[in-house]
Amino acid sequence: MRSVVLLSGGIDSATVLAHALSRGYEVTTLSFDYGQRHSRELESAGRIAEHFGVKHVVVTVDLRAIGGSALTSQIAVPERRSPEEIGSEIPVTYVPARNMIMLSIAAGLAEVVDADRIFYGANAIDYSGYPDCRPEFVRAMERAINLGTKRGVEGREIRVEAPLITLTKAEIIRLGHELGVPFELTWSCYRGGEKACGRCDSCILRLKGFMEAGFEDPLTYETLPDWYAEYLEGRK
Amino acid sequence: MRSVVLLSGGIDSATVLAHALSRGYEVTTLSFDYGQRHSRELESAGRIAEHFGVKHVVVTVDLRAIGGSALTSQIAVPERRSPEEIGSEIPVTYVPARNMIMLSIAAGLAEVVDADRIFYGANAIDYSGYPDCRPEFVRAMERAINLGTKRGVEGREIRVEAPLITLTKAEIIRLGHELGVPFELTWSCYRGGEKACGRCDSCILRLKGFMEAGFEDPLTYETLPDWYAEYLEGRK
Repeated sequence: MRSVVLLSGGIDSATVLAHALSRGYEVTTLSFDYGQRHSRELESAGRIAEHFGVKHVVVTVDLRAIGGSALTSQIAVPERRSPEEIGSEIPVTYVPARNMIMLSIAAGLAEVVDADRIFYGANAIDYSGYPDCRPEFVRAMERAINLGTKRGVEGREIRVEAPLITLTKAEIIRLGHELGVPFELTWSCYRGGEKACGRCDSCILRLKGFMEAGFEDPLTYETLPDWYAEYLEGRK
Repeated sequence: MRSVVLLSGGIDSATVLAHALSRGYEVTTLSFDYGQRHSRELESAGRIAEHFGVKHVVVTVDLRAIGGSALTSQIAVPERRSPEEIGSEIPVTYVPARNMIMLSIAAGLAEVVDADRIFYGANAIDYSGYPDCRPEFVRAMERAINLGTKRGVEGREIRVEAPLITLTKAEIIRLGHELGVPFELTWSCYRGGEKACGRCDSCILRLKGFMEAGFEDPLTYETLPDWYAEYLEGRK
Protein backbone atom coordinates (compact mmCIF):
# COMPACT_ATOMS: atom_id res chain seq x y z
CA MET A 1 0.00 0.00 0.00
CA ARG A 2 1.61 3.18 -1.22
CA SER A 3 0.56 6.74 -0.62
CA VAL A 4 1.57 10.32 -1.25
CA VAL A 5 1.27 12.67 1.73
CA LEU A 6 1.18 16.42 1.16
CA LEU A 7 3.51 17.77 3.82
CA SER A 8 3.60 21.51 4.42
CA GLY A 9 5.56 21.45 7.66
CA GLY A 10 2.59 22.48 9.79
CA ILE A 11 0.73 20.56 12.49
CA ASP A 12 -2.07 19.33 10.23
CA SER A 13 0.06 17.72 7.56
CA ALA A 14 2.48 16.26 10.13
CA THR A 15 -0.53 14.65 11.83
CA VAL A 16 -1.79 13.33 8.50
CA LEU A 17 1.64 11.80 7.84
CA ALA A 18 1.60 10.06 11.24
CA HIS A 19 -1.96 8.87 10.48
CA ALA A 20 -0.96 7.38 7.08
CA LEU A 21 2.00 5.60 8.67
CA SER A 22 -0.18 4.27 11.51
CA ARG A 23 -2.46 2.73 8.86
CA GLY A 24 0.49 0.87 7.36
CA TYR A 25 1.03 2.93 4.22
CA GLU A 26 4.39 3.22 2.56
CA VAL A 27 4.68 7.00 2.22
CA THR A 28 6.30 9.47 -0.16
CA THR A 29 5.92 12.98 1.23
CA LEU A 30 5.56 15.92 -1.11
CA SER A 31 6.33 19.56 -0.36
CA PHE A 32 6.40 22.68 -2.48
CA ASP A 33 8.74 25.52 -2.93
CA TYR A 34 6.13 27.93 -4.30
CA GLY A 35 7.98 31.16 -3.75
CA GLN A 36 6.88 31.46 -0.13
CA ARG A 37 8.32 34.55 1.49
CA HIS A 38 10.32 32.29 3.78
CA SER A 39 11.59 28.72 3.60
CA ARG A 40 11.14 27.94 7.30
CA GLU A 41 8.04 25.84 6.59
CA LEU A 42 9.90 23.81 3.95
CA GLU A 43 12.78 23.15 6.35
CA SER A 44 10.26 21.92 8.91
CA ALA A 45 8.73 19.59 6.34
CA GLY A 46 12.18 18.11 5.65
CA ARG A 47 12.84 17.58 9.35
CA ILE A 48 9.45 15.93 9.91
CA ALA A 49 10.01 13.55 6.95
CA GLU A 50 13.44 12.72 8.36
CA HIS A 51 11.96 12.14 11.83
CA PHE A 52 9.55 9.56 10.40
CA GLY A 53 12.15 8.10 7.99
CA VAL A 54 10.08 8.64 4.82
CA LYS A 55 10.97 9.87 1.32
CA HIS A 56 10.58 13.60 0.73
CA VAL A 57 10.08 15.09 -2.73
CA VAL A 58 10.20 18.88 -3.11
CA VAL A 59 8.68 20.38 -6.26
CA THR A 60 9.38 23.97 -7.25
CA VAL A 61 6.31 25.86 -8.52
CA ASP A 62 6.96 29.54 -8.81
CA LEU A 63 3.54 30.94 -7.93
CA ARG A 64 5.05 34.42 -7.56
CA ALA A 65 4.69 34.64 -11.36
CA ILE A 66 0.90 34.75 -10.94
CA GLY A 67 0.94 36.90 -7.78
CA GLY A 68 -2.17 37.62 -5.72
CA SER A 69 -1.43 36.55 -2.14
CA ALA A 70 0.16 37.85 1.04
CA LEU A 71 2.13 34.59 1.22
CA THR A 72 3.87 35.06 -2.12
CA SER A 73 3.89 38.82 -2.69
CA GLN A 74 4.30 42.02 -0.74
CA ILE A 75 0.77 42.34 0.73
CA ALA A 76 1.08 42.65 4.56
CA VAL A 77 0.22 39.60 6.69
CA PRO A 78 -2.56 40.81 9.07
CA GLU A 79 -1.85 40.93 12.82
CA ARG A 80 -4.42 39.74 15.35
CA ARG A 81 -4.88 39.81 19.10
CA SER A 82 -7.49 37.06 19.42
CA PRO A 83 -9.16 34.24 17.46
CA GLU A 84 -12.39 36.27 17.26
CA GLU A 85 -10.68 38.80 15.02
CA ILE A 86 -10.14 36.12 12.39
CA GLY A 87 -13.19 36.50 10.19
CA SER A 88 -14.80 33.99 7.88
CA GLU A 89 -14.02 35.99 4.74
CA ILE A 90 -11.35 34.60 2.39
CA PRO A 91 -8.08 35.80 3.93
CA VAL A 92 -5.37 37.72 2.02
CA THR A 93 -3.03 34.82 2.80
CA TYR A 94 -5.12 32.61 0.49
CA VAL A 95 -2.88 31.63 -2.43
CA PRO A 96 -5.11 31.37 -5.52
CA ALA A 97 -5.77 27.72 -6.33
CA ARG A 98 -2.79 26.57 -4.27
CA ASN A 99 -4.30 23.37 -2.94
CA MET A 100 -5.63 22.49 -6.37
CA ILE A 101 -2.14 22.90 -7.80
CA MET A 102 -0.63 20.82 -5.00
CA LEU A 103 -3.20 18.03 -5.35
CA SER A 104 -2.59 17.95 -9.10
CA ILE A 105 1.13 17.54 -8.61
CA ALA A 106 0.44 14.92 -5.93
CA ALA A 107 -1.66 13.07 -8.54
CA GLY A 108 1.31 13.10 -10.92
CA LEU A 109 3.60 11.77 -8.18
CA ALA A 110 1.01 9.13 -7.23
CA GLU A 111 1.15 7.87 -10.83
CA VAL A 112 4.93 7.74 -10.78
CA VAL A 113 5.28 5.97 -7.40
CA ASP A 114 2.17 3.83 -8.07
CA ALA A 115 0.22 5.06 -5.04
CA ASP A 116 -3.52 4.60 -4.58
CA ARG A 117 -3.93 7.22 -1.85
CA ILE A 118 -3.20 10.91 -1.55
CA PHE A 119 -3.39 12.17 2.02
CA TYR A 120 -4.19 15.83 2.36
CA GLY A 121 -4.38 17.82 5.60
CA ALA A 122 -7.24 20.12 4.56
CA ASN A 123 -9.34 21.36 7.41
CA ALA A 124 -12.74 22.94 6.95
CA ILE A 125 -13.22 24.09 10.54
CA ASP A 126 -10.46 26.54 11.34
CA TYR A 127 -9.87 27.45 7.69
CA SER A 128 -13.45 27.97 6.61
CA GLY A 129 -12.33 30.99 4.61
CA TYR A 130 -10.26 28.86 2.21
CA PRO A 131 -12.50 27.45 -0.53
CA ASP A 132 -10.01 24.68 -1.31
CA CYS A 133 -10.30 23.19 2.19
CA ARG A 134 -13.94 22.15 1.78
CA PRO A 135 -15.04 18.48 1.45
CA GLU A 136 -16.91 19.11 -1.82
CA PHE A 137 -13.71 20.49 -3.34
CA VAL A 138 -11.75 17.41 -2.25
CA ARG A 139 -14.34 15.12 -3.87
CA ALA A 140 -14.31 17.17 -7.09
CA MET A 141 -10.50 16.95 -7.26
CA GLU A 142 -10.62 13.20 -6.64
CA ARG A 143 -12.98 12.86 -9.57
CA ALA A 144 -10.78 15.02 -11.83
CA ILE A 145 -7.70 13.02 -10.79
CA ASN A 146 -9.34 9.73 -11.69
CA LEU A 147 -10.51 11.04 -15.06
CA GLY A 148 -7.22 12.72 -15.87
CA THR A 149 -4.58 10.16 -14.96
CA LYS A 150 -3.37 6.89 -16.42
CA ARG A 151 -4.17 5.00 -13.18
CA GLY A 152 -7.73 6.35 -13.21
CA VAL A 153 -8.26 5.37 -16.85
CA GLU A 154 -6.96 1.89 -16.06
CA GLY A 155 -9.54 1.60 -13.29
CA ARG A 156 -6.94 1.64 -10.52
CA GLU A 157 -8.53 4.48 -8.59
CA ILE A 158 -6.56 7.07 -6.62
CA ARG A 159 -8.43 8.16 -3.51
CA VAL A 160 -7.89 11.54 -1.89
CA GLU A 161 -8.25 11.32 1.88
CA ALA A 162 -8.55 14.39 4.04
CA PRO A 163 -8.79 12.76 7.47
CA LEU A 164 -8.73 16.05 9.40
CA ILE A 165 -11.34 17.86 7.38
CA THR A 166 -14.00 18.00 10.10
CA LEU A 167 -11.71 18.18 13.13
CA THR A 168 -11.04 21.30 15.17
CA LYS A 169 -7.44 22.38 15.66
CA ALA A 170 -7.61 21.10 19.26
CA GLU A 171 -8.79 17.69 18.05
CA ILE A 172 -5.99 17.59 15.48
CA ILE A 173 -3.43 18.39 18.18
CA ARG A 174 -4.82 15.65 20.43
CA LEU A 175 -4.71 13.18 17.52
CA GLY A 176 -1.16 14.25 16.60
CA HIS A 177 -0.14 13.84 20.23
CA GLU A 178 -1.49 10.26 20.30
CA LEU A 179 0.30 9.46 17.02
CA GLY A 180 3.64 10.82 18.24
CA VAL A 181 3.90 13.93 16.05
CA PRO A 182 7.04 15.92 16.91
CA PHE A 183 5.28 19.28 17.35
CA GLU A 184 8.60 20.96 18.10
CA LEU A 185 9.62 20.32 14.46
CA THR A 186 6.45 21.81 12.96
CA TRP A 187 6.03 25.40 11.81
CA SER A 188 2.79 27.35 11.39
CA CYS A 189 3.77 31.04 11.45
CA TYR A 190 3.18 33.02 8.25
CA ARG A 191 6.44 34.85 8.97
CA GLY A 192 9.79 33.13 8.84
CA GLY A 193 11.79 34.44 11.79
CA GLU A 194 13.88 32.52 14.31
CA LYS A 195 10.81 32.41 16.53
CA ALA A 196 7.13 32.22 15.54
CA CYS A 197 5.53 35.68 15.67
CA GLY A 198 2.49 34.88 17.85
CA ARG A 199 0.43 37.51 16.00
CA CYS A 200 -0.54 36.13 12.57
CA ASP A 201 -3.77 34.13 12.01
CA SER A 202 -1.83 30.91 11.83
CA CYS A 203 -0.02 31.43 15.17
CA ILE A 204 -3.27 32.49 16.84
CA LEU A 205 -5.14 29.39 15.63
CA ARG A 206 -2.24 27.16 16.64
CA LEU A 207 -1.98 28.58 20.16
CA LYS A 208 -5.75 28.45 20.63
CA GLY A 209 -5.63 24.80 19.51
CA PHE A 210 -2.93 23.87 22.00
CA MET A 211 -4.83 25.67 24.76
CA GLU A 212 -8.09 23.91 23.96
CA ALA A 213 -6.34 20.55 23.63
CA GLY A 214 -4.81 21.08 27.07
CA PHE A 215 -1.18 21.03 25.92
CA GLU A 216 1.64 23.51 25.84
CA ASP A 217 3.05 24.41 22.40
CA PRO A 218 6.75 23.47 22.41
CA LEU A 219 7.66 26.28 19.96
CA THR A 220 9.06 29.58 21.18
CA TYR A 221 7.22 32.78 20.22
CA GLU A 222 8.27 36.40 19.87
CA THR A 223 5.07 37.54 21.62
CA LEU A 224 2.38 35.48 23.28
CA PRO A 225 -1.23 36.70 23.20
CA ASP A 226 -2.49 37.59 26.71
CA TRP A 227 -5.06 34.79 26.77
CA TYR A 228 -2.43 32.16 25.99
CA ALA A 229 0.06 33.59 28.52
CA GLU A 230 -2.74 33.42 31.15
CA TYR A 231 -3.48 29.83 30.18
CA LEU A 232 0.19 28.89 30.65
CA GLU A 233 0.23 30.71 33.98
CA GLY A 234 -2.85 28.70 35.04
CA ARG A 235 -1.09 25.37 34.20
CA LYS A 236 1.73 25.99 36.69
CA MET B 1 -14.31 39.99 -20.82
CA ARG B 2 -11.05 38.55 -19.59
CA SER B 3 -9.60 35.14 -20.21
CA VAL B 4 -6.54 33.01 -19.58
CA VAL B 5 -5.26 31.02 -22.57
CA LEU B 6 -2.95 28.07 -22.01
CA LEU B 7 -0.27 28.53 -24.65
CA SER B 8 2.19 25.73 -25.26
CA GLY B 9 3.67 27.05 -28.48
CA GLY B 10 2.04 24.36 -30.64
CA ILE B 11 -0.60 24.67 -33.35
CA ASP B 12 -3.55 23.81 -31.10
CA SER B 13 -2.95 26.40 -28.40
CA ALA B 14 -2.01 29.09 -30.96
CA THR B 15 -5.34 28.42 -32.68
CA VAL B 16 -7.16 28.61 -29.35
CA LEU B 17 -5.51 31.96 -28.67
CA ALA B 18 -6.63 33.31 -32.06
CA HIS B 19 -10.13 31.95 -31.33
CA ALA B 20 -10.33 33.70 -27.91
CA LEU B 21 -9.18 36.98 -29.48
CA SER B 22 -11.70 36.63 -32.31
CA ARG B 23 -14.44 36.35 -29.68
CA GLY B 24 -13.35 39.67 -28.17
CA TYR B 25 -11.65 38.39 -25.03
CA GLU B 26 -8.87 40.31 -23.36
CA VAL B 27 -6.24 37.57 -23.03
CA THR B 28 -3.44 36.68 -20.64
CA THR B 29 -1.49 33.75 -22.04
CA LEU B 30 0.11 31.23 -19.70
CA SER B 31 3.03 28.93 -20.46
CA PHE B 32 5.04 26.56 -18.33
CA ASP B 33 8.66 25.86 -17.87
CA TYR B 34 8.20 22.34 -16.51
CA GLY B 35 11.66 21.01 -17.06
CA GLN B 36 11.04 20.12 -20.70
CA ARG B 37 14.12 18.66 -22.32
CA HIS B 38 14.25 21.68 -24.59
CA SER B 39 12.93 25.24 -24.39
CA ARG B 40 12.11 25.58 -28.11
CA GLU B 41 8.38 25.22 -27.40
CA LEU B 42 8.51 27.95 -24.76
CA GLU B 43 10.32 30.33 -27.13
CA SER B 44 7.60 29.68 -29.71
CA ALA B 45 4.92 30.49 -27.13
CA GLY B 46 6.63 33.81 -26.41
CA ARG B 47 6.81 34.67 -30.11
CA ILE B 48 3.16 33.78 -30.69
CA ALA B 49 2.05 35.95 -27.72
CA GLU B 50 4.18 38.78 -29.10
CA HIS B 51 2.68 38.32 -32.57
CA PHE B 52 -0.83 38.76 -31.15
CA GLY B 53 0.24 41.53 -28.73
CA VAL B 54 -1.03 39.76 -25.58
CA LYS B 55 0.43 39.36 -22.08
CA HIS B 56 2.50 36.23 -21.50
CA VAL B 57 3.06 34.75 -18.05
CA VAL B 58 5.56 31.90 -17.67
CA VAL B 59 5.33 29.75 -14.53
CA THR B 60 8.15 27.42 -13.54
CA VAL B 61 6.98 24.01 -12.29
CA ASP B 62 9.82 21.59 -11.98
CA LEU B 63 8.10 18.33 -12.88
CA ARG B 64 11.47 16.62 -13.23
CA ALA B 65 11.31 16.20 -9.44
CA ILE B 66 8.46 13.70 -9.88
CA GLY B 67 9.87 12.07 -13.04
CA GLY B 68 7.95 9.56 -15.12
CA SER B 69 7.87 10.85 -18.72
CA ALA B 70 9.93 10.89 -21.89
CA LEU B 71 9.38 14.65 -22.07
CA THR B 72 11.00 15.38 -18.73
CA SER B 73 13.41 12.48 -18.17
CA GLN B 74 15.77 10.28 -20.13
CA ILE B 75 13.26 7.81 -21.61
CA ALA B 76 13.71 7.79 -25.44
CA VAL B 77 11.12 9.61 -27.60
CA PRO B 78 9.76 6.94 -29.99
CA GLU B 79 10.38 7.35 -33.75
CA ARG B 80 7.66 6.64 -36.29
CA ARG B 81 7.37 6.31 -40.05
CA SER B 82 3.61 6.77 -40.39
CA PRO B 83 0.51 7.86 -38.42
CA GLU B 84 -0.67 4.23 -38.25
CA GLU B 85 2.25 3.36 -35.99
CA ILE B 86 0.93 5.75 -33.34
CA GLY B 87 -1.18 3.50 -31.16
CA SER B 88 -4.05 4.39 -28.85
CA GLU B 89 -2.19 3.31 -25.69
CA ILE B 90 -1.02 6.06 -23.32
CA PRO B 91 2.28 7.21 -24.82
CA VAL B 92 5.58 7.45 -22.91
CA THR B 93 5.53 11.18 -23.65
CA TYR B 94 2.51 11.55 -21.33
CA VAL B 95 3.60 13.73 -18.41
CA PRO B 96 1.71 12.50 -15.33
CA ALA B 97 -1.13 14.91 -14.52
CA ARG B 98 0.46 17.69 -16.57
CA ASN B 99 -2.75 19.20 -17.93
CA MET B 100 -4.36 19.02 -14.50
CA ILE B 101 -1.41 20.92 -13.05
CA MET B 102 -1.56 23.49 -15.85
CA LEU B 103 -5.32 24.01 -15.51
CA SER B 104 -4.92 24.44 -11.75
CA ILE B 105 -2.31 27.14 -12.23
CA ALA B 106 -4.50 28.72 -14.91
CA ALA B 107 -7.31 28.81 -12.32
CA GLY B 108 -5.02 30.67 -9.92
CA LEU B 109 -4.09 33.15 -12.64
CA ALA B 110 -7.76 33.54 -13.60
CA GLU B 111 -8.48 34.60 -10.01
CA VAL B 112 -5.64 37.10 -10.04
CA VAL B 113 -6.50 38.71 -13.42
CA ASP B 114 -10.26 38.37 -12.76
CA ALA B 115 -10.95 36.19 -15.80
CA ASP B 116 -14.13 34.17 -16.28
CA ARG B 117 -12.76 31.90 -19.01
CA ILE B 118 -9.85 29.51 -19.31
CA PHE B 119 -9.17 28.44 -22.88
CA TYR B 120 -7.45 25.12 -23.23
CA GLY B 121 -6.32 23.48 -26.46
CA ALA B 122 -7.06 19.88 -25.45
CA ASN B 123 -7.87 17.60 -28.30
CA ALA B 124 -9.48 14.22 -27.87
CA ILE B 125 -9.11 13.03 -31.46
CA ASP B 126 -5.41 12.91 -32.25
CA TYR B 127 -4.39 12.54 -28.59
CA SER B 128 -6.83 9.86 -27.55
CA GLY B 129 -4.06 8.25 -25.51
CA TYR B 130 -3.83 11.19 -23.10
CA PRO B 131 -6.49 10.84 -20.38
CA ASP B 132 -6.33 14.56 -19.58
CA CYS B 133 -7.47 15.54 -23.09
CA ARG B 134 -10.95 14.02 -22.70
CA PRO B 135 -14.13 16.14 -22.37
CA GLU B 136 -15.19 14.47 -19.11
CA PHE B 137 -11.86 15.43 -17.57
CA VAL B 138 -12.29 19.06 -18.66
CA ARG B 139 -15.76 19.17 -17.05
CA ALA B 140 -14.45 17.60 -13.83
CA MET B 141 -11.64 20.18 -13.64
CA GLU B 142 -14.11 23.00 -14.26
CA ARG B 143 -16.17 21.75 -11.33
CA ALA B 144 -13.10 21.49 -9.07
CA ILE B 145 -12.00 24.99 -10.11
CA ASN B 146 -15.37 26.48 -9.21
CA LEU B 147 -15.45 24.71 -5.86
CA GLY B 148 -11.84 25.52 -5.02
CA THR B 149 -11.45 29.18 -5.92
CA LYS B 150 -12.63 32.47 -4.46
CA ARG B 151 -14.42 33.42 -7.70
CA GLY B 152 -16.29 30.11 -7.67
CA VAL B 153 -17.35 30.52 -4.03
CA GLU B 154 -18.57 34.03 -4.82
CA GLY B 155 -20.72 32.60 -7.61
CA ARG B 156 -18.68 34.25 -10.37
CA GLU B 157 -18.08 31.05 -12.30
CA ILE B 158 -14.91 30.31 -14.25
CA ARG B 159 -15.63 28.29 -17.37
CA VAL B 160 -13.05 26.03 -18.99
CA GLU B 161 -13.45 25.99 -22.76
CA ALA B 162 -11.73 23.43 -24.93
CA PRO B 163 -12.93 24.56 -28.37
CA LEU B 164 -10.77 22.08 -30.30
CA ILE B 165 -11.65 19.01 -28.29
CA THR B 166 -13.59 17.23 -31.03
CA LEU B 167 -11.70 18.57 -34.06
CA THR B 168 -9.18 16.60 -36.09
CA LYS B 169 -5.72 18.07 -36.58
CA ALA B 170 -6.64 18.98 -40.18
CA GLU B 171 -9.74 20.85 -38.94
CA ILE B 172 -7.65 22.69 -36.36
CA ILE B 173 -5.18 23.73 -39.05
CA ARG B 174 -7.98 24.97 -41.30
CA LEU B 175 -9.49 26.93 -38.39
CA GLY B 176 -6.09 28.35 -37.46
CA HIS B 177 -5.52 29.36 -41.07
CA GLU B 178 -8.85 31.26 -41.13
CA LEU B 179 -8.00 32.98 -37.84
CA GLY B 180 -4.56 34.07 -39.03
CA VAL B 181 -2.37 31.82 -36.86
CA PRO B 182 1.32 32.31 -37.71
CA PHE B 183 2.11 28.60 -38.17
CA GLU B 184 5.74 29.43 -38.90
CA LEU B 185 6.10 30.54 -35.26
CA THR B 186 4.60 27.37 -33.78
CA TRP B 187 6.56 24.32 -32.63
CA SER B 188 5.31 20.76 -32.24
CA CYS B 189 8.42 18.54 -32.31
CA TYR B 190 9.23 16.61 -29.12
CA ARG B 191 12.89 17.28 -29.84
CA GLY B 192 14.37 20.74 -29.67
CA GLY B 193 16.77 21.04 -32.60
CA GLU B 194 17.16 23.87 -35.12
CA LYS B 195 14.73 22.01 -37.36
CA ALA B 196 11.77 19.81 -36.39
CA CYS B 197 12.76 16.12 -36.53
CA GLY B 198 9.91 14.81 -38.72
CA ARG B 199 10.00 11.47 -36.92
CA CYS B 200 8.35 11.86 -33.49
CA ASP B 201 4.59 11.34 -32.94
CA SER B 202 4.02 15.06 -32.73
CA CYS B 203 5.78 15.83 -36.05
CA ILE B 204 3.95 12.96 -37.76
CA LEU B 205 0.52 14.15 -36.56
CA ARG B 206 1.34 17.73 -37.54
CA LEU B 207 2.46 16.83 -41.07
CA LYS B 208 -0.52 14.53 -41.56
CA GLY B 209 -2.77 17.40 -40.43
CA PHE B 210 -1.27 19.86 -42.90
CA MET B 211 -1.56 17.30 -45.67
CA GLU B 212 -5.21 16.56 -44.89
CA ALA B 213 -6.01 20.27 -44.54
CA GLY B 214 -4.48 20.85 -47.95
CA PHE B 215 -1.71 23.19 -46.79
CA GLU B 216 2.05 23.09 -46.69
CA ASP B 217 3.68 23.26 -43.26
CA PRO B 218 5.93 26.36 -43.24
CA LEU B 219 8.42 24.75 -40.78
CA THR B 220 11.60 23.11 -41.99
CA TYR B 221 12.24 19.48 -41.08
CA GLU B 222 15.35 17.34 -40.73
CA THR B 223 13.62 14.46 -42.51
CA LEU B 224 10.24 14.32 -44.19
CA PRO B 225 8.24 11.08 -44.13
CA ASP B 226 7.84 9.62 -47.66
CA TRP B 227 4.07 10.13 -47.74
CA TYR B 228 4.42 13.84 -46.92
CA ALA B 229 7.24 14.34 -49.44
CA GLU B 230 5.02 12.71 -52.07
CA TYR B 231 2.14 15.00 -51.09
CA LEU B 232 4.37 18.06 -51.55
CA GLU B 233 5.56 16.71 -54.90
CA GLY B 234 1.92 16.33 -55.98
CA ARG B 235 1.14 19.97 -55.08
CA LYS B 236 3.71 21.35 -57.54
